[in-house]
Amino acid sequence: MSESNWIAFDWGTSCLRAWLMSASNEVLKSAESDQGMSKLKRDEFESALQSLVQPWLSGGAQMTAVGCGMVGARQGWVEAPYVETPCAPLGTLTPAPVRGNVLKVLIAPGVMQRSPADVMRGEETQVAGLLAQRPDFEGVVCLPGTHSKWVRVSGGKILSFQTFLTGELFTLLAEQSVLRFSVSREGWDDGAFLEAVGVGYREPASIFSRVFSLRAETLLEGLDGSLARAKLSGYLLGVELAASEGYWQGNNVALLGSEKISVAYATGLGAQGCDVEVLDGEALTLAGLHAAGFQH
Amino acid sequence: MSESNWIAFDWGTSCLRAWLMSASNEVLKSAESDQGMSKLKRDEFESALQSLVQPWLSGGAQMTAVGCGMVGARQGWVEAPYVETPCAPLGTLTPAPVRGNVLKVLIAPGVMQRSPADVMRGEETQVAGLLAQRPDFEGVVCLPGTHSKWVRVSGGKILSFQTFLTGELFTLLAEQSVLRFSVSREGWDDGAFLEAVGVGYREPASIFSRVFSLRAETLLEGLDGSLARAKLSGYLLGVELAASEGYWQGNNVALLGSEKISVAYATGLGAQGCDVEVLDGEALTLAGLHAAGFQH
Repeated sequence: MSESNWIAFDWGTSCLRAWLMSASNEVLKSAESDQGMSKLKRDEFESALQSLVQPWLSGGAQMTAVGCGMVGARQGWVEAPYVETPCAPLGTLTPAPVRGNVLKVLIAPGVMQRSPADVMRGEETQVAGLLAQRPDFEGVVCLPGTHSKWVRVSGGKILSFQTFLTGELFTLLAEQSVLRFSVSREGWDDGAFLEAVGVGYREPASIFSRVFSLRAETLLEGLDGSLARAKLSGYLLGVELAASEGYWQGNNVALLGSEKISVAYATGLGAQGCDVEVLDGEALTLAGLHAAGFQH
Repeated sequence: MSESNWIAFDWGTSCLRAWLMSASNEVLKSAESDQGMSKLKRDEFESALQSLVQPWLSGGAQMTAVGCGMVGARQGWVEAPYVETPCAPLGTLTPAPVRGNVLKVLIAPGVMQRSPADVMRGEETQVAGLLAQRPDFEGVVCLPGTHSKWVRVSGGKILSFQTFLTGELFTLLAEQSVLRFSVSREGWDDGAFLEAVGVGYREPASIFSRVFSLRAETLLEGLDGSLARAKLSGYLLGVELAASEGYWQGNNVALLGSEKISVAYATGLGAQGCDVEVLDGEALTLAGLHAAGFQH
């Protein structure tokens, strides 16, 4: 693997992303598919990956593909058993069974915590990428997303972490609950968002009532759908920040994610007096997969 | 209406219930349909009600039907404008437009509150039923459900109220989120429920993390689906009890609802030291509709 191109992939529940990487770890090509782990049976993973990366396969030479995410869950391609905290974020890769001889596929293990019970698959690879670039990093890593993670990192290890269902709850409330008549699909308002973050942070217990209030404000005051969207997001993030305060208060915090969600988290945290460093989550996934593939 | 049978109905978002009532307010018959308000266009309400109560219509004599609930919303049969707090729970009934001459239909208005913005449709009729039976009731009324309500009642009026999205959130999380793989559709455990109520009540901010933990406990410890169901319900109720403490702490609390959900709320409140009186929500809906129909 050390002298040739290789393939990196991040295979989540709803989406597969792949990159053609050079030996010196530059991105040569990238591709994405909606063939998420939840849509595939065990024997369909190989062809789903192969068809996405087909244009990158030259001649008959075997290429190595290194990936992470829910693809390594029990219901995925092959179970890549969890590593248990405290631990280095990079565990031993698990080879995935393949019928063809075009791809050699290796999958990174997730990380588990016994008490409180918690799991991650994919985020550990981003933490590994951060540590590959900055081996001395000490502090807290926040990885916003459907299930956001707060991770304590010290001495090159993940010490402990905590997952919040915030992102999934936002989607469910905005699209499936009675709030779907109040919250627009697009649109935003920074001021309303930040005010709502503060409310959620100071009064987390009131969250179920606050979110219903958005519906009432629509009915009684004609609340704009973009404002409702920003306020819903803000209330939920505020509650997460109240509960994760032990992580971010007075600590060195690195925020890893896509641009849009990272900006929301960074401004929300900034308004509570926590300045964070925002890093490119995708770049760190690739750095982590490179480190995983070249660790031996 | 005073000397003949009449029809009571409670028409919510997802369900229509109707009762044939005697002049002396006994239930003679009852019927239920899944033709909820959300499934009907404005001109379909009359036939939906008429087909449900058809067996009760004798000869050609017109019968009066008095109802409450989302049927009086802007998207319902006819808008029955809100009454604003502080107010008596019984406002003026709004006649619904009918093409036939078999039914005369009257719909009770909902109640609104300006600040914080809040609305109810249907629950006000149950409060009216309680006050019809006990005009001197002073205290707090809790109406658990999809959107649970806490209502301050004094001097025969609704002073203020607060709505919590707790029930809808339970359904969304149990059936649509990643927890659907952890939470069984049926099953219960009183001990796990009560412990979780306490956790949610004492640490409401941690709710988004607690609920994700149920998924992790399933993966790592094989958490039983019935236990997960009881714990999810308990965590959510605990958060509602933390936020509604100003209502129930040290107050006279009447709990109005169906048997199952009322028991859950009563035991959860009891464990926090609040003894409540549990009343039959359906009986109070009928008492409220009777009072509304006979108020003039």
